Amino acid sequence: MAQMTRDELCFMSIGEASGLLRDRELSPVELTQAYLDRIEALDDRVKSYVTLLPEAALQQARTAEDEIVRGEYRGPMHGVPVAYKDLYDTEGVRTTGQSKVLEHRVPAEDCTAIVKLREAGAVTLGKLAMHEFALGGPKTSLFDQACNPWNLDHVTGGSSSGSGAAMAAGLAMGTLGSDTGGSIRGPAALCGIVGMKPTYGRVSRYGVLPLSWSLDHCGPMTWTVEDAALMLQAIAGHDPKDPTSSTEPVPDYAAALGGDLRGLTVGVPRHYFFGDDVALDPEVADAVNKAIDTLGELGATVRDIEIPSLQYASIANNVIMISEAHAYHRKNLLSQPENYGDIVRTRFILGAVYTAGDYVQAQRARSRLRREFAEALGSVDLIAATVMPKPAASLADFDPLGMMMTPSLMAPFNETGLPSMSVPVGFSSDGLPIGMQLAAAPFREDTVLKAGHAYQQQARWHDQRPAL
Amino acid sequence: MAQMTRDELCFMSIGEASGLLRDRELSPVELTQAYLDRIEALDDRVKSYVTLLPEAALQQARTAEDEIVRGEYRGPMHGVPVAYKDLYDTEGVRTTGQSKVLEHRVPAEDCTAIVKLREAGAVTLGKLAMHEFALGGPKTSLFDQACNPWNLDHVTGGSSSGSGAAMAAGLAMGTLGSDTGGSIRGPAALCGIVGMKPTYGRVSRYGVLPLSWSLDHCGPMTWTVEDAALMLQAIAGHDPKDPTSSTEPVPDYAAALGGDLRGLTVGVPRHYFFGDDVALDPEVADAVNKAIDTLGELGATVRDIEIPSLQYASIANNVIMISEAHAYHRKNLLSQPENYGDIVRTRFILGAVYTAGDYVQAQRARSRLRREFAEALGSVDLIAATVMPKPAASLADFDPLGMMMTPSLMAPFNETGLPSMSVPVGFSSDGLPIGMQLAAAPFREDTVLKAGHAYQQQARWHDQRPAL
Repeated sequence: MAQMTRDELCFMSIGEASGLLRDRELSPVELTQAYLDRIEALDDRVKSYVTLLPEAALQQARTAEDEIVRGEYRGPMHGVPVAYKDLYDTEGVRTTGQSKVLEHRVPAEDCTAIVKLREAGAVTLGKLAMHEFALGGPKTSLFDQACNPWNLDHVTGGSSSGSGAAMAAGLAMGTLGSDTGGSIRGPAALCGIVGMKPTYGRVSRYGVLPLSWSLDHCGPMTWTVEDAALMLQAIAGHDPKDPTSSTEPVPDYAAALGGDLRGLTVGVPRHYFFGDDVALDPEVADAVNKAIDTLGELGATVRDIEIPSLQYASIANNVIMISEAHAYHRKNLLSQPENYGDIVRTRFILGAVYTAGDYVQAQRARSRLRREFAEALGSVDLIAATVMPKPAASLADFDPLGMMMTPSLMAPFNETGLPSMSVPVGFSSDGLPIGMQLAAAPFREDTVLKAGHAYQQQARWHDQRPAL
Repeated sequence: MAQMTRDELCFMSIGEASGLLRDRELSPVELTQAYLDRIEALDDRVKSYVTLLPEAALQQARTAEDEIVRGEYRGPMHGVPVAYKDLYDTEGVRTTGQSKVLEHRVPAEDCTAIVKLREAGAVTLGKLAMHEFALGGPKTSLFDQACNPWNLDHVTGGSSSGSGAAMAAGLAMGTLGSDTGGSIRGPAALCGIVGMKPTYGRVSRYGVLPLSWSLDHCGPMTWTVEDAALMLQAIAGHDPKDPTSSTEPVPDYAAALGGDLRGLTVGVPRHYFFGDDVALDPEVADAVNKAIDTLGELGATVRDIEIPSLQYASIANNVIMISEAHAYHRKNLLSQPENYGDIVRTRFILGAVYTAGDYVQAQRARSRLRREFAEALGSVDLIAATVMPKPAASLADFDPLGMMMTPSLMAPFNETGLPSMSVPVGFSSDGLPIGMQLAAAPFREDTVLKAGHAYQQQARWHDQRPAL
């Protein structure tokens, strides 16, 4: 293999790198060092990492190299440098949720997702920035906010801000985010990467700081759809330590990739995802509509569908999320309110203002939404939708309260637990990324991945990287 | 067969009658007429029925007779006269929940449990009294309260008051009750009959007025444990119309009956069910302890177990129940408060006082309780416990608010969804019945029934009937 530059190494997808790693044409140590060098060179501007683990990473890379040389190749994640949102527990490495409340918290064990990635041979580069407790705006009580690699004066979206920024900037080959109302898919859309929120129960949440246990999901954020399939494969599956973990068997996600989309029916709930209340940026609407057309060109049958209860989805998600978060944080809100950021404190306290009746009504709306989606998914295989109504705002213009007042295009898939992925579908005239959302029936991540991969191979937006 | 008197007919168990019905030694019409006669003679004092359906019942009995004569015997419920708590929807027959709010409500279709009983050939005698909306004290906004057949000046317990009273008085061969915090098992204990709350999801709730959908259970109330097995068999099973209905296969419950209890381990969470907070009547404690001893004499191994979260179970059940009820009743509470009884209105309004955080904390306590029971049921097959702390109070002494302040001995099994049955274990010195509670792992109604049946065959309290 010809010598690759640092940036060529860091711009490979997992799919590209894993073949070279397996065939010993690429050293995990060399790859890890390239990432560490690039992080050192660029991350003071991107601010995606809150904790960097260079020595441990190189040690893990050497172990991976030894194993591969000995013929003990573990699979596509072996020797791949990855990083985690700072709410995934890491043994002996502080895990803060980007809040002063947990500033000095050092977990005694790894969370299950990280245990699984380590078993798959992945190398841990470090821990990534996020919005405080996976809820607040970018200004948190503990660390700096991450910046959008496509324009450092713009936000990344949240709450998996560092996971999105690190991926887009080529500062990790894969990252883990978490998603309670869109926290994987939002930053994925705004950072021009792929973000997969799997089915509720598909990926263990054991050892991951909760925001709202009935809505929280863990999942991968990657450069390509293929990479999302490879990373999801490593972390999916039943975990007896997580009472909400599903025993549904895990299929071979990579095997689902390839071929066109003939035979697939795509439903578009246009009344909501392109509706008047959302105030879509016209460039976003155009890009997503073109992407949906591309799904049709790839052989899918596309038609509009109606999900009436979507009109209640956003408020219901908010009431449930805040109420559950309040229950978790109540003690600390009372004993150390000063250690919460303003936005987070204000929103968590609302859980004492909503009544029990409000919460139950929200759960009723959610049940209805789930039934309507189940019915729709009896006649369509895939749902295509918008993700974020506008490209990333500038840091100066960012308005967290305004954002909260806008209906969420992602929350319906947290409430229903359906697998949902954001895939890049182009750029605004300002050069900021735009995403499309693809969703499917429970545990049909394979369908989402197949469609996203076919689209990505056709559209090839991932050939572009931000200049930093 | 020798001619039986009206009361001999009405005092048979389903198990005894079904053989005679099958063999054409007993006519369903004769049996139904005997019940109608006895109801006419006694129910103005017992007040167990709110709607009597004599013509329809006799018509159904004639149909059953014709079918049996033609050789189309449907099974043990064929030709058996039963009655339903007035929250089970009956096509064309008003179903009120014993509330003025629903005084003129006439459902267009039968609920699933009644559809199944009709398919099994059962005869519907009528609809039974209950506490208002399955929650209030005996004084309701619509009908009279039922009286305890063992002493008509005493309460029946609730909320399935008419179901308990009709069974004890020999005014039905089987009844259906519903149970959100003990509403099947409580009146079963106080009326000296068997009441089975099956596993959550085991019996369809489609067409049954809700109190609290995460806690509501439907189940049979019968004279013997064998009858509970026969009646449960008819109504158990998956119902696509009920989203909480389980697809778990239904075993042959009658086949589980018989034999001793060798090999079974019985756990007694004595710290709670016999604890200081409960203020058990000493006669109740004695009777239940003797019954537990009998389980040991029948071959079971008995030992004490600890379920620490039981201390939170009662308050958690109450917060969840009231909050969910509030969400359902909110509109009517605002638009027609005068149509609710005082107790029900006051309690339902509390759902607007509890915060969303309270509700979620209650659900967290419930999750912990569920885990602790699951762990305990890894090492014991059965749980034996008290049901009601005291025998039935006199109507004059009954204090619904005081009752609400006492920890519930039944609610833990609503929260955990575990199958739980009350079985008679004797009488107080005043001649009022006492019950014992038996529970098991999810969908192990067979274990509960086997143990209850073995106990009942040994103790034979069911040989006694109240004098009316």
